[in-house]
Amino acid sequence: MELQQLVDRIAAEVMPGGASADYIPALARVDARRFGMAVATLDGEVSGAGEYRQPFSIQSISKAFTLALAVGDELWERVGREPSGSPFNSLVQLETENGIPRNPFINAGALVVTDHLGPGASDRLLAFLREESGNDTIGIDEEVAKSELDHGDRNRALAHFMASYGNMRNPVDMVLHEYVRQCSIAMSCADLAKSALFLARHGVRNDGERLLGVSGAKRVNAVMLTCGTYDAAGQFAYRVGLPGKSGVGGGIVAVVPGRCAICVWGPGLDARGNSVAGVDALDRFTTLTGWSVF
Amino acid sequence: MELQQLVDRIAAEVMPGGASADYIPALARVDARRFGMAVATLDGEVSGAGEYRQPFSIQSISKAFTLALAVGDELWERVGREPSGSPFNSLVQLETENGIPRNPFINAGALVVTDHLGPGASDRLLAFLREESGNDTIGIDEEVAKSELDHGDRNRALAHFMASYGNMRNPVDMVLHEYVRQCSIAMSCADLAKSALFLARHGVRNDGERLLGVSGAKRVNAVMLTCGTYDAAGQFAYRVGLPGKSGVGGGIVAVVPGRCAICVWGPGLDARGNSVAGVDALDRFTTLTGWSVF
Amino acid sequence: MELQQLVDRIAAEVMPGGASADYIPALARVDARRFGMAVATLDGEVSGAGEYRQPFSIQSISKAFTLALAVGDELWERVGREPSGSPFNSLVQLETENGIPRNPFINAGALVVTDHLGPGASDRLLAFLREESGNDTIGIDEEVAKSELDHGDRNRALAHFMASYGNMRNPVDMVLHEYVRQCSIAMSCADLAKSALFLARHGVRNDGERLLGVSGAKRVNAVMLTCGTYDAAGQFAYRVGLPGKSGVGGGIVAVVPGRCAICVWGPGLDARGNSVAGVDALDRFTTLTGWSVF
Amino acid sequence: MELQQLVDRIAAEVMPGGASADYIPALARVDARRFGMAVATLDGEVSGAGEYRQPFSIQSISKAFTLALAVGDELWERVGREPSGSPFNSLVQLETENGIPRNPFINAGALVVTDHLGPGASDRLLAFLREESGNDTIGIDEEVAKSELDHGDRNRALAHFMASYGNMRNPVDMVLHEYVRQCSIAMSCADLAKSALFLARHGVRNDGERLLGVSGAKRVNAVMLTCGTYDAAGQFAYRVGLPGKSGVGGGIVAVVPGRCAICVWGPGLDARGNSVAGVDALDRFTTLTGWSVF
Repeated sequence: MELQQLVDRIAAEVMPGGASADYIPALARVDARRFGMAVATLDGEVSGAGEYRQPFSIQSISKAFTLALAVGDELWERVGREPSGSPFNSLVQLETENGIPRNPFINAGALVVTDHLGPGASDRLLAFLREESGNDTIGIDEEVAKSELDHGDRNRALAHFMASYGNMRNPVDMVLHEYVRQCSIAMSCADLAKSALFLARHGVRNDGERLLGVSGAKRVNAVMLTCGTYDAAGQFAYRVGLPGKSGVGGGIVAVVPGRCAICVWGPGLDARGNSVAGVDALDRFTTLTGWSVF
Repeated sequence: MELQQLVDRIAAEVMPGGASADYIPALARVDARRFGMAVATLDGEVSGAGEYRQPFSIQSISKAFTLALAVGDELWERVGREPSGSPFNSLVQLETENGIPRNPFINAGALVVTDHLGPGASDRLLAFLREESGNDTIGIDEEVAKSELDHGDRNRALAHFMASYGNMRNPVDMVLHEYVRQCSIAMSCADLAKSALFLARHGVRNDGERLLGVSGAKRVNAVMLTCGTYDAAGQFAYRVGLPGKSGVGGGIVAVVPGRCAICVWGPGLDARGNSVAGVDALDRFTTLTGWSVF
Repeated sequence: MELQQLVDRIAAEVMPGGASADYIPALARVDARRFGMAVATLDGEVSGAGEYRQPFSIQSISKAFTLALAVGDELWERVGREPSGSPFNSLVQLETENGIPRNPFINAGALVVTDHLGPGASDRLLAFLREESGNDTIGIDEEVAKSELDHGDRNRALAHFMASYGNMRNPVDMVLHEYVRQCSIAMSCADLAKSALFLARHGVRNDGERLLGVSGAKRVNAVMLTCGTYDAAGQFAYRVGLPGKSGVGGGIVAVVPGRCAICVWGPGLDARGNSVAGVDALDRFTTLTGWSVF
Repeated sequence: MELQQLVDRIAAEVMPGGASADYIPALARVDARRFGMAVATLDGEVSGAGEYRQPFSIQSISKAFTLALAVGDELWERVGREPSGSPFNSLVQLETENGIPRNPFINAGALVVTDHLGPGASDRLLAFLREESGNDTIGIDEEVAKSELDHGDRNRALAHFMASYGNMRNPVDMVLHEYVRQCSIAMSCADLAKSALFLARHGVRNDGERLLGVSGAKRVNAVMLTCGTYDAAGQFAYRVGLPGKSGVGGGIVAVVPGRCAICVWGPGLDARGNSVAGVDALDRFTTLTGWSVF
């Protein structure tokens, strides 16, 4: 079966469900039943179905890209690489582990990554995504960004808490500002799949330049597999069996090393914050292709 | 034995120890072996020994007074009344109990009390302390206040964390500002003992006006006995057996209901943050007088 | 008002409520609205009202007496003295504090106390209670004891967990056996009040012999005030303001140092496991007499 | 490079380190610098180096096999599939999650799996391992089994704790007995690699019979990748990038789906309980072959 037929079939059969994230209005008003899916192969070809060219709020998917931009030995002194085993915002482990977040994909860890990138972090991310996708119109949804800041007390608490342990280099206000801008980027399945291809190419960007060494790309993929889907990484590893990163905007990016990158979007979330349609579509994809890592 | 002889004897026999708090310079440079003690009887008479007229940083002792100014049914919907069973800054219980601090004497709880008092909280406290002590020169040590703010990331984290649960009415910056000012008040053992007398008089102030009903005063005393000395309340209840509130400036205020209020000062702290000389002096006091509540 | 009039009035006005403990049949079938109250003064005189001569299952009240029989420096190396700040069976603190229970009144702590007393612990307790109450018919409810053992998995888990830290000297089976026998003693308010008088007499038993030094009695009273009513010690300190120990059989023993010992019984429990009628009756008692410690 | 050359090279270059497990004498006295490695390809051919025919104590590696024998919908109602995020014996999560262990590879979860298999669990496991390896001499090290039972207080605590939540069907003594026997099986790298081949064959045993469906095999592999190496699964996923299960006897079994099964043995453990030489050898193996899943 060709990839185009495959994504068409998945789009026809996918089972949506769940409810849109409701903590900010801009996300809450998105219809939970919308759906899009795109697969980008190593050569940059995209097969898409549904609303795969519709921009949506990438939210925590941004964490996979900022990790790739920041990864390196120095970063791992400030953030761990192990699954958190608790809800994604938890402060408990931060306290028992002296301000070192468990991994770069819980909020605390992503704040450290942003702080590590420093001033201009969100612009660097935006430039990277535009270059990889070839789409200069990708931008930040300012309404979402403002809402995120207005609801940012918990992230602010995390940042000040880490600062109290000396694990924050820049002012908390600056880090929060960059962090919400990263999460508020709006882009489509097609553009996200293209932007994630470097992880399928073991670190090589679309222009042939190397962003990461083979080892760095492996690291990002490993963190995605073990920590990429909040408190459901074990379940995702079983059902999908691919490195993946989800966001509460309803998107999920997944990587088949050596083959392709995939992005699905369905705003309805399950109890753990992952897209119901997105997990279902990826489950179907790996079942039909046999491209799980297991 | 008369009270004056008693405090003289205690001052002569007291065993100092421990080290001064070291998280801000203004506290760290105070000699750990200094000592003062004052007992104020119901009629306002003060017996003192050592440096009992020397102002020091009251720190968390302020929490007993702000609680008395804020106490009421509405407050108890925002803060609990049970011992915390964990170090005084812990965020863990805040998380498992949805942003409601365990009691008004852990930092999170004191921030809620300050928020409950609202803008001008520190001025109200200052006015109260000046009136009860009859000393208009009591003021805020601005160097301490500034240092506290500079080291305030953890308290800021607590405040934002509670705000994320809707348990903060005023802007975090305002609450922090008032909170550090309260903690940075400098006053002497003599003035603190006089200021605490209303708790020995079941709620009646020095001018005969009632600040609290009998029940309200009992409440504050009960919280002091069960939660007033950080993670050592059980040990303090045994050795001293009085409602008491300590601060990392080395002061402890204790109350003998119906008899007197006591303040001791010794900057050397034990591992739990209580004055070594202060606990020792109060232990001797209750042993010599038999005025423990047990 | 004379004590007899006082307890009659309280028995007439007391507000029962809550539900009987339901984890074992023998407790579940006791009518939640029953009530008894007895006050024993220092000379051993008892004033009682309601079913104050009706034996009931003392359950955790036994912990106050076994603590008094075991108390000493050596015990405090194996169990703490601080409030637990969490539900009475919690394993979490045991883990973070290396098998040393927070205080002797949580189940883990009481198991250590029983282990400390060693083989024959329950017989020693029984002998003590019979002597102090002058009632040789006090015995163990074997149905309750059997049910407790049958539902003992959690206590067994606690004991094995402490054994894994080296904090259990005797075989777990023996300790559990003694522990459930202690909890399954059945006796009346009158007998319990008389048996607790030594705590009001600063350690002196009914025959004039000293069980505990003044300091030991103070220690037991302090632990009762700060830890005696599960996760509601702060609330109990405020409403009642006396050292007290409750049990899920619906009994509460309280001590007015230098005056009297009180026992109330009402099987209906609140959410924290304390007798609703019992707390209400003690609240009325201290309000009417003014004999709170605060 | 042929597999035999590969394992020879790895055996020559591997860096041992760490110390042998010391909680029981039989493990403590094994020289930490010993080493063996075997790779079994899908057709059952074994390439080995070092002491790859030397039996050692498989310990927690047994958990991967008992999971495979027990896996099914009913099991997942009694045990979770998510990384634990805390040390492998922790009781904390058991308490907050009502007696349902996080995953089948922490001790609590493995006890549930053993309970699920019921009486005779260890004999079933032994029969399976003998059949897959074709080695009838595989047996239980009775000295190790006895020592494990003697040091079994923590596992006994876990089992009673789960029993208190109704998550234990058989008597705790029986479950413990079976559990320690499973852990005390002694076998070689060669035999373990052959025994794990069914996971590389997506569920098909060496005789062509199917033990698990494709989905069941994927499930076991996914749990191994996310939870198989104690609190270092993220690090193992990065360095090795294969589903793996380690034991404190120094063994690690890893699976390359569709290709081979590997077993390495080196008794020296790192701080998290994984074989230092074992992780190093697997790291070299995936680097040299490129057979990581990422």
